[in-house]
Amino acid sequence: MRTIRVIGIGTGDPEQLTLQAVRALSEVDAVFVLDKGSEKADLVALRREICARHAKAGLRFVVAGDPERERRPADYAGTVEAWHAARASLLEALIADELGAGEVGAFLVWGDPALYDSTLRILERITARGRLAFACEVVPGISSVQVLAARHRIPLNRIGAPVHITTGRRLAAGLDPEADSTVVMLDADPRFDHLDPELTIYWGAYLGTRDEILRSGRLGTVGPEIRRVRAEARARHGWIMDTYLLRKPGAE
Amino acid sequence: MRTIRVIGIGTGDPEQLTLQAVRALSEVDAVFVLDKGSEKADLVALRREICARHAKAGLRFVVAGDPERERRPADYAGTVEAWHAARASLLEALIADELGAGEVGAFLVWGDPALYDSTLRILERITARGRLAFACEVVPGISSVQVLAARHRIPLNRIGAPVHITTGRRLAAGLDPEADSTVVMLDADPRFDHLDPELTIYWGAYLGTRDEILRSGRLGTVGPEIRRVRAEARARHGWIMDTYLLRKPGAE
Repeated sequence: MRTIRVIGIGTGDPEQLTLQAVRALSEVDAVFVLDKGSEKADLVALRREICARHAKAGLRFVVAGDPERERRPADYAGTVEAWHAARASLLEALIADELGAGEVGAFLVWGDPALYDSTLRILERITARGRLAFACEVVPGISSVQVLAARHRIPLNRIGAPVHITTGRRLAAGLDPEADSTVVMLDADPRFDHLDPELTIYWGAYLGTRDEILRSGRLGTVGPEIRRVRAEARARHGWIMDTYLLRKPGAE
Repeated sequence: MRTIRVIGIGTGDPEQLTLQAVRALSEVDAVFVLDKGSEKADLVALRREICARHAKAGLRFVVAGDPERERRPADYAGTVEAWHAARASLLEALIADELGAGEVGAFLVWGDPALYDSTLRILERITARGRLAFACEVVPGISSVQVLAARHRIPLNRIGAPVHITTGRRLAAGLDPEADSTVVMLDADPRFDHLDPELTIYWGAYLGTRDEILRSGRLGTVGPEIRRVRAEARARHGWIMDTYLLRKPGAE
């Protein structure tokens, strides 16, 4: 029986790994990497550093090109569906070819495998096909949402109030009226014009790395600055990973 | 200048600590503990074990009785407000008395300090009073929500869909209609009668510990079993910590 571990590795600071992740990684024979292209040299280097520090000697890297994906499709769900199916076929073959019986393979996931990451869904899909059997283990990791809150030294929720985690795509349609605190992830181009300028925003980019940038304040005031800082940073690094919290005006 | 570190320590498995938390803890002179009564012997022992393993020799434990709090108040927000004010007064005095200039104090928070924990709010309140100055640092920890998802090997969100995190108190008024996936925390007495029986539930208790219990399935089918298992476990242990995810019927 093969084992596949899906290990959350945090947002960029190698010290965000849990002791459990370190132990899980130390037993791994092969790390599977889907080369997304979007994962820039800084991130690849960080992943290699984490493995060099914690994995056993002789760890194999199995790198495959990620199937092409339309970035701004008309049919979002259908496109993602086709893309996941292509990834599942690719990974099923890779695991069968590159991982021996009794060996342990791993996917190292930025942040936490439970939030806006497709690895678990793709493995589930492979299992459902019934052609390749493996045990699956998940090790949670610190997500960018948590680092955002930690660096701003704030709780995500107000007292007894809910927290809504959503995507930039959905925020374009406006805030959920029930949401007191809204975390926005995967926003490739944050626009704040359609939102209440009295919201408070807590924003962070490259969280947990030496390039970290933080801004917070009244959305109407700091929103334009965030867009400027973000564009500059993105141009400088060639990529950006950021997230933010929007909070309704009112008492803490 | 004093430093206060708010360190997330995960949900019960000492290996959920991050390397960052281990390092942060190793530099701490005094750990502050508000004795909640509700924190049972198992949890106190676990906290001591974590400190014995990672803190420096001579670490001081500063334990204070937590101010009384009405458990089922008519005015929830007002009661929490008064309780936080009492805690702030108590902790301000404790820090001033028990932590020397240049020393590092810490609060060890179950799960993540950013989710339904009052430590940061109370420290903010002490700072706002302006009588005691300290640097505040936050180290994120693995939350029960993340362990729940990892143990069930599921993502919290469906593809591109939002996640709503709320409390048992709020769920009593029904699900947020916008919420595709709803995580419920702090539910002292889960009742599912008012919810759609076609929802899927993923439930976990004592997550990350050797007493962990997991159940999942159609709410109408497994809901009653979860209530029974939960009541039995609570009677056996004298306490319970659990959380669950509710997901609308539909494609993954």
